[in-house]
Amino acid sequence: MDLTLEHARALDAADPLAAHRDRFVHADDRVYLDGNSLGRLPRTTADALARVVEQQWGAGLIRSWPRWLEEARATADLLGEVVLGVAPGQVLVGDSTTVSLYRLAVAAVRARPGRTRILVEADAFPTDLYVLDGVARDHGLELVRIAAPIDDGVRAEHLAPLLDETVALVCLSHVHYRSGALLDLAGLTTLAHEVGALTLWDLCHSAGSVEVPLAASGADMAVGCTYKYLNAGPGAPAFSYVRADLLPALRSPIQGWFSQADQFAMAPDYDPVAGIDRIAAGTPDVRGIAAVREGVRTIEAAGVAALRAKGSALGDLAIALADAWLTPLGFRVASPRDAALRGAHVVLEHPEAWQACQAWIDAGVIPDFRTPDRLRIGLAALTTSFEDVWAGLDRLRAIVAEGRHLAYPTERGRVT
Amino acid sequence: MDLTLEHARALDAADPLAAHRDRFVHADDRVYLDGNSLGRLPRTTADALARVVEQQWGAGLIRSWPRWLEEARATADLLGEVVLGVAPGQVLVGDSTTVSLYRLAVAAVRARPGRTRILVEADAFPTDLYVLDGVARDHGLELVRIAAPIDDGVRAEHLAPLLDETVALVCLSHVHYRSGALLDLAGLTTLAHEVGALTLWDLCHSAGSVEVPLAASGADMAVGCTYKYLNAGPGAPAFSYVRADLLPALRSPIQGWFSQADQFAMAPDYDPVAGIDRIAAGTPDVRGIAAVREGVRTIEAAGVAALRAKGSALGDLAIALADAWLTPLGFRVASPRDAALRGAHVVLEHPEAWQACQAWIDAGVIPDFRTPDRLRIGLAALTTSFEDVWAGLDRLRAIVAEGRHLAYPTERGRVT
Repeated sequence: MDLTLEHARALDAADPLAAHRDRFVHADDRVYLDGNSLGRLPRTTADALARVVEQQWGAGLIRSWPRWLEEARATADLLGEVVLGVAPGQVLVGDSTTVSLYRLAVAAVRARPGRTRILVEADAFPTDLYVLDGVARDHGLELVRIAAPIDDGVRAEHLAPLLDETVALVCLSHVHYRSGALLDLAGLTTLAHEVGALTLWDLCHSAGSVEVPLAASGADMAVGCTYKYLNAGPGAPAFSYVRADLLPALRSPIQGWFSQADQFAMAPDYDPVAGIDRIAAGTPDVRGIAAVREGVRTIEAAGVAALRAKGSALGDLAIALADAWLTPLGFRVASPRDAALRGAHVVLEHPEAWQACQAWIDAGVIPDFRTPDRLRIGLAALTTSFEDVWAGLDRLRAIVAEGRHLAYPTERGRVT
Repeated sequence: MDLTLEHARALDAADPLAAHRDRFVHADDRVYLDGNSLGRLPRTTADALARVVEQQWGAGLIRSWPRWLEEARATADLLGEVVLGVAPGQVLVGDSTTVSLYRLAVAAVRARPGRTRILVEADAFPTDLYVLDGVARDHGLELVRIAAPIDDGVRAEHLAPLLDETVALVCLSHVHYRSGALLDLAGLTTLAHEVGALTLWDLCHSAGSVEVPLAASGADMAVGCTYKYLNAGPGAPAFSYVRADLLPALRSPIQGWFSQADQFAMAPDYDPVAGIDRIAAGTPDVRGIAAVREGVRTIEAAGVAALRAKGSALGDLAIALADAWLTPLGFRVASPRDAALRGAHVVLEHPEAWQACQAWIDAGVIPDFRTPDRLRIGLAALTTSFEDVWAGLDRLRAIVAEGRHLAYPTERGRVT
């Protein structure tokens, strides 16, 4: 691969998504390689939120509730269609990923009574491990951690030996938060189904970056956040997916009034609705839903297939540059080299990664650090250019080649 | 009492909180009697949210996280101090009231192993009944509904006969959503504590309208929403209170990463922090927290004691007008007449309440309807004038006296 700046610029010139970059706020010329932690602000979002706040809340007051409830449903269905490729009525937007994962995991293990094990990847994102640890303990189940190489993630040969009819639930991340490994969602779902286990997919790092074959695979349930590739902003509500025919078998442990049939009859006894809202809990975050809608529209305008293609190309460039420039400096590419097996971030391992991270930030680049020694490079296709990748890695090369990072603390403080 | 418009205006002229009304957006001249369902928009909130969105998210991106985490803690402590009168480190702002109630109820019944009953008022707000029904069933407990007159609410004589050492948890609303009855939080807490039961108070209708004697009473736990008297907007996050010395005994069933010690070490095993954040779950709703902060500041500027005094006076006027004008038309005051036993809303019962509600809205008044036949008049002291009360009830009198409401449908549609 041609590793010149000119080539990176040529890739940008030929990029069909290049114009989409201007749909987002770019307040300065820093190189942002962390769109997989917090996506950029879409240009339409500030106005959309101001409308919700000033017109719908300030002027409309409670008269806006019918509209807000319609927006909540429409936004969830739009996210389902655009991001997940699923038919309406199977997605809920609301609550955090943690709460969403909890209620679906509990509902799932109760839908498989008598089974005694939950399987989760050993290196799952921490909140997934913590939540499932609690769910397993509270229901008398064993949480089994699936051992697999972090760089490549869980494959059939890691999952299959653990599957039998004692397994209630298999919980996996579609794209691994620490390596970018893209799992075979369809194949692993089929394996789980062969023993009658349910599947719960964490889509935090795949929604909006790669196609999610939920419908084709018959996957049972999924959750994901909206503040990464979906660009809905800090603390925006998560989404939950449940396959329609599975819904009647699921009952949320959190029996909130927004899941109640004929909610405003305010009947004393709980009677959940038949549809996806049966897993809803409390009053929806109206501002958050408006931000999700604007974020999902940025995905809709590009199309997931185009985002996937560009994300792969950005990753290929990053890996080629890392091989040429950074491997000689002690870095190791800790992500799958085959774009077909990789999501939209690339991870570089280095023993002095924390020091390099701090120096890199001071050099005008915003990356992400993940313990113990990983630099995570987010390649959000809507907002990241090929030149960003080139410039970011060029600065990292200079820092480490000159040893400038060694002037930074080795001790990690509180990192977000 | 003098029931003239001039007298209402004189009360406004003498009202020490009158100037606070201008701290909020008033987009038209409708009479808003529903600040207990959705509080008005504070004038500072739109700008505060724009700063979060445009500057902190749009420009700051992930570099704003340290600030956002500090704001979350500071806002929770401010709410605790201003609204609840409690020391720092005992309040969390996050998730919905429903989720908050769920996790504290589960934690509570697990902190009282061997006990077999949860007590809740029979006419509790529906989400409380639904959540506790689920918690009781999932933990093999019996949910006992405390019978008490709706108008006056649960008193010692209703609770005491049900208390014994089989009771794990007593859950009550400080101010009743349907009648406005203000319960004796301290006295009922003492009764529950005599048998070793824990108390969980729903403060949705009392936070920001009346003093909440959490600290003096030794109450164990509380939850409440922020979109009513705290003016934080539709779907803003709820708050949770746990008395500091009780915290070590509680463990949230939802083991989220924001409750983890040294969170960003991302250790594989769950180890919750010692403080109030041990009940936290996922990524905080940054926009919602900013709105809560602005809303709590509107309470801080007035002081809860002044809000309580004005709320009582507004209620006294509403009841006097109802007695004079509406009782002859078939209405019944369904709230405590003694302001010391009443929160900041007054309820009027009428067999044609739903029709009257529709006609009243068309006459430029926004009230609230509650099944089966109640008009709920919210008297948010910061934004409601004595003239509002006078004008609102004057229009209701004219409508019903002339029979205009009888032209409206008797069948209730979806009501929010």
